[in-house]
Amino acid sequence: MAKKFVGVIGASECDVTLAQRAYEIGQGIGRLGAILVCGGLGGVMAAACQGAKQEGGLTVGILPGTQRGEANRFIDIEIVTGLLEARNLIIIRTADIVVAIGGSYGTLSEIGFALRMNKPVVGFETWDIPGVVKASTVQETLELIAKNLSE
Amino acid sequence: MAKKFVGVIGASECDVTLAQRAYEIGQGIGRLGAILVCGGLGGVMAAACQGAKQEGGLTVGILPGTQRGEANRFIDIEIVTGLLEARNLIIIRTADIVVAIGGSYGTLSEIGFALRMNKPVVGFETWDIPGVVKASTVQETLELIAKNLSE
Amino acid sequence: MAKKFVGVIGASECDVTLAQRAYEIGQGIGRLGAILVCGGLGGVMAAACQGAKQEGGLTVGILPGTQRGEANRFIDIEIVTGLLEARNLIIIRTADIVVAIGGSYGTLSEIGFALRMNKPVVGFETWDIPGVVKASTVQETLELIAKNLSE
Amino acid sequence: MAKKFVGVIGASECDVTLAQRAYEIGQGIGRLGAILVCGGLGGVMAAACQGAKQEGGLTVGILPGTQRGEANRFIDIEIVTGLLEARNLIIIRTADIVVAIGGSYGTLSEIGFALRMNKPVVGFETWDIPGVVKASTVQETLELIAKNLSE
Repeated sequence: MAKKFVGVIGASECDVTLAQRAYEIGQGIGRLGAILVCGGLGGVMAAACQGAKQEGGLTVGILPGTQRGEANRFIDIEIVTGLLEARNLIIIRTADIVVAIGGSYGTLSEIGFALRMNKPVVGFETWDIPGVVKASTVQETLELIAKNLSE
Repeated sequence: MAKKFVGVIGASECDVTLAQRAYEIGQGIGRLGAILVCGGLGGVMAAACQGAKQEGGLTVGILPGTQRGEANRFIDIEIVTGLLEARNLIIIRTADIVVAIGGSYGTLSEIGFALRMNKPVVGFETWDIPGVVKASTVQETLELIAKNLSE
Repeated sequence: MAKKFVGVIGASECDVTLAQRAYEIGQGIGRLGAILVCGGLGGVMAAACQGAKQEGGLTVGILPGTQRGEANRFIDIEIVTGLLEARNLIIIRTADIVVAIGGSYGTLSEIGFALRMNKPVVGFETWDIPGVVKASTVQETLELIAKNLSE
Repeated sequence: MAKKFVGVIGASECDVTLAQRAYEIGQGIGRLGAILVCGGLGGVMAAACQGAKQEGGLTVGILPGTQRGEANRFIDIEIVTGLLEARNLIIIRTADIVVAIGGSYGTLSEIGFALRMNKPVVGFETWDIPGVVKASTVQETLELIAKNLSE
């Protein structure tokens, strides 16, 4: 597979169950050999990055603030934007496919932007928006990602 | 009333009926003495601006491109950002209250961001998202705007 | 004269003498009937805005942070960007002509960007950069602005 | 050495001699084991990236447009911003140290911003600005970079 970027979007705080699912999705992204790109902070992002690193993947964090130190410790490449939430658009533009995990308003905003940019969006326990391909399990999420990346 | 900004978000292309409603909502914003801030292009934005100007209002367009000339002709103050869609966040941050008219993905993205920023959002024929206060008529939309601005 | 935007760039802290000159330059911009656009904060920006308001001009502040309240009290239209220093580019893109007053590194950055965008730059007690038209008095600064705007 | 980012700034078009120097500086950055971050386009940027890749380095391109395809072919990690020139600030914020090669206005703007952010700037055949540490040879440039990164 040529180099591909999978965007992971989700809240910077989440419960343990969702974090576990994000970790497993991250593992799958790592095994696919894709680069995981996200907002670089905690919650869903940190869990997915930890999973990707566990499987030898590469992780990129597009940080909102002005210091590299705000990144979670599973980020390999910290991009420091100083653009606050406007950095969300960079995650979407950089990704070939986007996985939305969980349901905050920030995630909704990114889903809308991704669909506007005609990026495929796989949704796991997230907003029910026409255009988002819903997955009900981690396995299904990873199959949908793999299918999209191979097209 | 102290100076207030009402953000109008909606697609740059829309049908005649929705444009007429956006025009009427713009008229109401102008009569309220609020500043209308939007993305400065066509469709819902141009119609709302035309309405506001009709009633003596002031309009601000936060433009995505690099040239002032892309603004619709009802914009008083053209802000040229060169940030493409990232300019959407500036509209939301500048507004005291946001009115969403119609249902494109770009509008969905802005609704999500507005709710994340804790801005009140009034929705007219738009996405059904928890947190958006739905209005079913122009009259109701304007009453909700006026009520929020006076709080 | 058709509506024109004059960008004023300079440090958010400055000594009393430079503030007085910025105030006088702002007065001249107000008398020209141009819209003064700046970063909306203190120092050179606040002084120029005060001058413009004194003469009945209109002022626009492109703010770096996330709250309208950071604007100086002579700003009519506060644009809240949340983009920190990236908002500097919006000032330059919005302006028809740029006046640089004083010599901080931020101002140097904006001069470089303005020249790259082929915007005319008038410099008053600022960096000596090829392409900047130097003015040695307030009077000369205003004449250069007026000349450029009428072209 | 802990992971470090070296920002390379310079024009997207340059003559053969400067490209050769940029290539050699890129080689040195690669040998240092630092990550090279730049705007991802041609000229100085492509030459430096080619040098870094020649020596096994990792390269990150912060792209101005909306498509990954605009990157030069020596970029490993393409960050797609869609922010046009505003992406320049991301290069500076991400870098631990900045090397300015050659003398366009865009480079001047980035030098000003880097100095404002208190980032060390090494200059090779570039603007003579107080605060920029001037290097007159490739060797000296690389020694200054290595010295700064080890501090």
